[in-house]
Amino acid sequence: MPARLAEIAEAIFRPRAIALIGATPDQAKNNSRAQRVLQKAGYKGRILPINPGRSEIMGETAYPDIRAAPGPIDHAFIMVPAAAVPEAIAGCIAQGVKVATLYSAGFAEMGAEGRAAQDHIVAMARAGGLRLIGPNCLGLVNVTDGVPITNNAAVEAETIPAGGIAVASQSGSMMGALLTRAMARGHAFSKLVSVGNESDLGIGEITEMLVEDEATRVILLFLETLRDAPNLARAARRAHELGKPVIVYKLGRSEVGRRIAVSHTGAMVGADELAATFFRENGILRVDTLEALVELPRLVMGRSPPKGRRVSVITGTGGGAAMIVDRLGSLGDEVVGPSPEMQARLAGQGIMLGDSPLIDLPMGGGRGHYTTVLQELVASEHCDAVVAVLGSTARLRPTQVNENILDVYDGSKPIAVFAAPQADAALRILDDADVAGFRTPESCADALHAFLNWRAPAAPETIPPALWRSAAERLAASVATTLDEAEACAVFADLGIEGPGSRIITSPEEAAGIEGPVVVKILSPDILHKTEAGLVRLNVTGADAIQDTVRDVLAMARKTFPAARLRGALVAPMHHGLAEVILGFRRDPEVGPIIMLGMGGVLAELRRSFCVRLAPVSLATAREMIEELPELRMLRGFRNLPRGDVAALASAIRALSLLACIDSPAVQEAEINPLFIRPEGQGVVAVDGLIARG
Amino acid sequence: MPARLAEIAEAIFRPRAIALIGATPDQAKNNSRAQRVLQKAGYKGRILPINPGRSEIMGETAYPDIRAAPGPIDHAFIMVPAAAVPEAIAGCIAQGVKVATLYSAGFAEMGAEGRAAQDHIVAMARAGGLRLIGPNCLGLVNVTDGVPITNNAAVEAETIPAGGIAVASQSGSMMGALLTRAMARGHAFSKLVSVGNESDLGIGEITEMLVEDEATRVILLFLETLRDAPNLARAARRAHELGKPVIVYKLGRSEVGRRIAVSHTGAMVGADELAATFFRENGILRVDTLEALVELPRLVMGRSPPKGRRVSVITGTGGGAAMIVDRLGSLGDEVVGPSPEMQARLAGQGIMLGDSPLIDLPMGGGRGHYTTVLQELVASEHCDAVVAVLGSTARLRPTQVNENILDVYDGSKPIAVFAAPQADAALRILDDADVAGFRTPESCADALHAFLNWRAPAAPETIPPALWRSAAERLAASVATTLDEAEACAVFADLGIEGPGSRIITSPEEAAGIEGPVVVKILSPDILHKTEAGLVRLNVTGADAIQDTVRDVLAMARKTFPAARLRGALVAPMHHGLAEVILGFRRDPEVGPIIMLGMGGVLAELRRSFCVRLAPVSLATAREMIEELPELRMLRGFRNLPRGDVAALASAIRALSLLACIDSPAVQEAEINPLFIRPEGQGVVAVDGLIARG
Repeated sequence: MPARLAEIAEAIFRPRAIALIGATPDQAKNNSRAQRVLQKAGYKGRILPINPGRSEIMGETAYPDIRAAPGPIDHAFIMVPAAAVPEAIAGCIAQGVKVATLYSAGFAEMGAEGRAAQDHIVAMARAGGLRLIGPNCLGLVNVTDGVPITNNAAVEAETIPAGGIAVASQSGSMMGALLTRAMARGHAFSKLVSVGNESDLGIGEITEMLVEDEATRVILLFLETLRDAPNLARAARRAHELGKPVIVYKLGRSEVGRRIAVSHTGAMVGADELAATFFRENGILRVDTLEALVELPRLVMGRSPPKGRRVSVITGTGGGAAMIVDRLGSLGDEVVGPSPEMQARLAGQGIMLGDSPLIDLPMGGGRGHYTTVLQELVASEHCDAVVAVLGSTARLRPTQVNENILDVYDGSKPIAVFAAPQADAALRILDDADVAGFRTPESCADALHAFLNWRAPAAPETIPPALWRSAAERLAASVATTLDEAEACAVFADLGIEGPGSRIITSPEEAAGIEGPVVVKILSPDILHKTEAGLVRLNVTGADAIQDTVRDVLAMARKTFPAARLRGALVAPMHHGLAEVILGFRRDPEVGPIIMLGMGGVLAELRRSFCVRLAPVSLATAREMIEELPELRMLRGFRNLPRGDVAALASAIRALSLLACIDSPAVQEAEINPLFIRPEGQGVVAVDGLIARG
Repeated sequence: MPARLAEIAEAIFRPRAIALIGATPDQAKNNSRAQRVLQKAGYKGRILPINPGRSEIMGETAYPDIRAAPGPIDHAFIMVPAAAVPEAIAGCIAQGVKVATLYSAGFAEMGAEGRAAQDHIVAMARAGGLRLIGPNCLGLVNVTDGVPITNNAAVEAETIPAGGIAVASQSGSMMGALLTRAMARGHAFSKLVSVGNESDLGIGEITEMLVEDEATRVILLFLETLRDAPNLARAARRAHELGKPVIVYKLGRSEVGRRIAVSHTGAMVGADELAATFFRENGILRVDTLEALVELPRLVMGRSPPKGRRVSVITGTGGGAAMIVDRLGSLGDEVVGPSPEMQARLAGQGIMLGDSPLIDLPMGGGRGHYTTVLQELVASEHCDAVVAVLGSTARLRPTQVNENILDVYDGSKPIAVFAAPQADAALRILDDADVAGFRTPESCADALHAFLNWRAPAAPETIPPALWRSAAERLAASVATTLDEAEACAVFADLGIEGPGSRIITSPEEAAGIEGPVVVKILSPDILHKTEAGLVRLNVTGADAIQDTVRDVLAMARKTFPAARLRGALVAPMHHGLAEVILGFRRDPEVGPIIMLGMGGVLAELRRSFCVRLAPVSLATAREMIEELPELRMLRGFRNLPRGDVAALASAIRALSLLACIDSPAVQEAEINPLFIRPEGQGVVAVDGLIARG
């Protein structure tokens, strides 16, 4: 963490003095709460209520203006109406405050006008060296040191135990929900932060601080969107180094509105798929259920990503375990039964296990067997996690959890315990022992799925500039915002992707000598839907026909699009392939550069089929992408169909992804559509494409 | 319910006397429990412990043999080891017992030997007029009348409140889990039945009894498989008539092993998709999460399937509601904001609602607004259900649930209340008021999804035999188990599906005069993979070439498959279409006759795309199937592509589904692959197909 950020973290979580701008003695008002909770928490620093009409509030000297309060003041909590915020910010700057947390609402969340007001205060803060949390946030709590800076009613109502869980949320109202649900599971906390509109300090920088926080062992994030991805990526890598898992629940899986974009890439890939890619590649565990967010921490705290994806399930109740196995199966996780060696060893002790992936040992049959098998599973190398399912005994004799599990479990491998009946007492025993207990089969499977798919963040690759320098030079030499097909294909060729071999023809005579078959199409940066406009002619054969077609296409374009700049007609050989794909590059406003591989053609438009990664990608990742598209199996030896040049496809994916390395001028979007994949050894060819900057 | 079944239900749930075969005074043994729970429940009938070594057990006279006990005895609970069961069954029959419930295990659940033993006792029972529940079941409880016939430890430990919920489960061990989870939500019960191996009385007949049970208002089923589908379908239709919702949780979503089948149909459609179809078409609500199984009942009790699929969400906490809306969106349900009229009306009362589908009303802003809007939503015609989300107040001031919801809710429309924080007290208030409260956003969305997609069972259609009589006659005239392509296409033609117009040629000379282009293929009931064997030749043109090809195909088949019966070569015109599909019919062992429409061709093999319905289907349902396949949009006016004859496709789907009407000889499987769809007005053509019986 940069030294400057460490200093800000100190001001946020351990300020020596806190100004409460908008404090009030009126106990019925929300704005009185911040001071009450600070006092109740026994905050050791100075509390400075700011209120122009008061000289004293709840026993503390009040000041009419923060400028009038005695410094140094590290942190200001601003509760005044939006209109009064700029003046409060000015006061903070004048006073030399380091951080202001803005409870005040009425900013970007209210639309354009509010956004302008927010931009204004951010500009003020930047100029004045002040960092901001919020606006429109509920504040934060340093539970470790007893410093609550918040108007959150939940914080006032609860006695929050101190421990290792840090929570950051974009939804203020979810802070209380997360806190109380986690408390009901016996969790204890280090820091709680409501980040609000993230006008300045975003979820990324806040997570960086939480990662470095000594008391914090695991970080839970509740996100509505991704606003601060580069910082969050850096925080996640650092969290991995320090062995502090980051778990996220993110809304927006169903977002129907895809980004509006020039290319297909934007239309095919939804924001949620990008977020999923971002989390996976940065080693962040993502859960799909709210319960898993509060039940997963005990499974992963102090652990690293697993080597494999295999889980064993032991149960005293068939039906209860089957629900979990069934769900793990549909999530694509591998449920493994006992290894042959384990079967043999246990048979020696009179415990006969079958080959079923589910190890079903009714507690009645053979006392101690459950425990013996559980020990074997935890010690064994053949699975990466264990699920232990408890039947009716968990309710009828809750303390049996001690004998059956806790007395023998050595913590060496993650264990998830699911109680099939309503078994609050048994779950409490597990909570107290810091063993992950689950209340629903769905959250248990969801949490395991997140754990089994947890991978270390990819190490950043150093890419030799030689691979992209000529493309960068060509891009720098061009002034167009949107490169036409010919220019775009030239850039792709610079990156090593074979182009269509087209010629630009500006008069029919120039086409003399070309016999075809060729495709003739208009070349203009201003005409987007060439095919629909009749300006693409396929399979033109014979010199005369080609010249006639060129003439016709040019004339038609001039007539239909009188204002368009015409660069001529493109004449290119007809290309064929065993399959066609779309290759897209995009700088996503949320997650940064991405590369997308999708199926081409009409069917693909009817049923999206694609995969996506953060760019740039290695060749190995490119190959992984190819394997992810089920349709491309047809190129890899399916039913005696001819094999396609998937090696060349992988190279092309990697090559296009290198656009991420070119910063100036940066390419916003690029697309090759279609890219034909020829038979093995014959390469791939980019038949059409575009590049958009700015 | 047939009178005979009503009599059995009486013997099951209200027996005048119960024999406990295998009773024991040893309190440490499981087998002692049945008598203890009967006595504790204050059972009014006679308890007859059967034990050869005792004359008295726990205060009741014991008998060495059921034959020696005083009759009449309606019900026997059998707890002896598997080997002793046949003798116990014989005793029951001799004594005139009506129903035996078999706690004894060691039957079909143990493999082939156990299955034979089970078949044996079922045969004995059938011959002797005895009905069986189980074996391998935990028994049952008539909560209404205080008659527990079970060894279930959960039943002994709990005091089960009497009410309207009936539960039947294939998993014995889940009985306790369901019971305790439902009790924790304040539910009360009518009947609980563990059906075990369903050797005789299956889930279908048991559900029929529960539906007719006066005390029962809703029925929950926990299923591992479908064994008794026709009875369950009848029970579900009756339940609909009586206004008693049936809710099911079924395992097996992830079943990887598809049925092994001659056709593609079996490979494409998984058991779970069939079960989903079965439930939907029979008006059974299916939930995906365990919590929803116990949280949904209050939402649907006493209600009928909704008219539409629209839900409105009102909330005091943005994040909490967004989790539900997000999930409903990804499940495909429609979340609707306030109607314009409602907006106008509320604006008149100073409540400004935006156009967002989420109605976000922080409790702080405008006391009473939440309640006013909620009343509007419940009264409005523009949504079919309402979700009310509670924020931190649900925890801090639980009784506010009364003012905000209960005092104004008139029950006219289903309402689901989700509490974002841990809010046990508020949920208890809802439970007590019989309003559906939800503990997780996932179960809330899951339950609503089940409700919004709940449809009345389809009324059985009367199909004129004229539509299928000629096909039935042709099938009856054939002796083959598997009909060859020519025979199969003839049956399809009888049903009204145009065939390829092929001729059977047994010597090259017979092909004289055919000019082509044609397809030439071998015709043999014994050669399955014709294409792979080189015995299909496409696009053969010219009389000589056609004769040569016929000669070659016949010779090659004779050489490669010397044992195969060769009926000749099929010569047919080449057919083309805008698209190709697979049409499949199948008598599924679980759900009965089904019809499947899937995409054809190689791509479809790489990425399954199909839909399925119970057969026979109406033309309207056939059209619905066509609309369900995204790829077929290309035939319905997509991007200026030519339109296909979807009307003819619908007719073909309907026609093939009529095979369900032909009982003797019954077709097990039929498939048309490919069926080409020609341009609008030009019909469809079945190019190849098969029919398998027996």
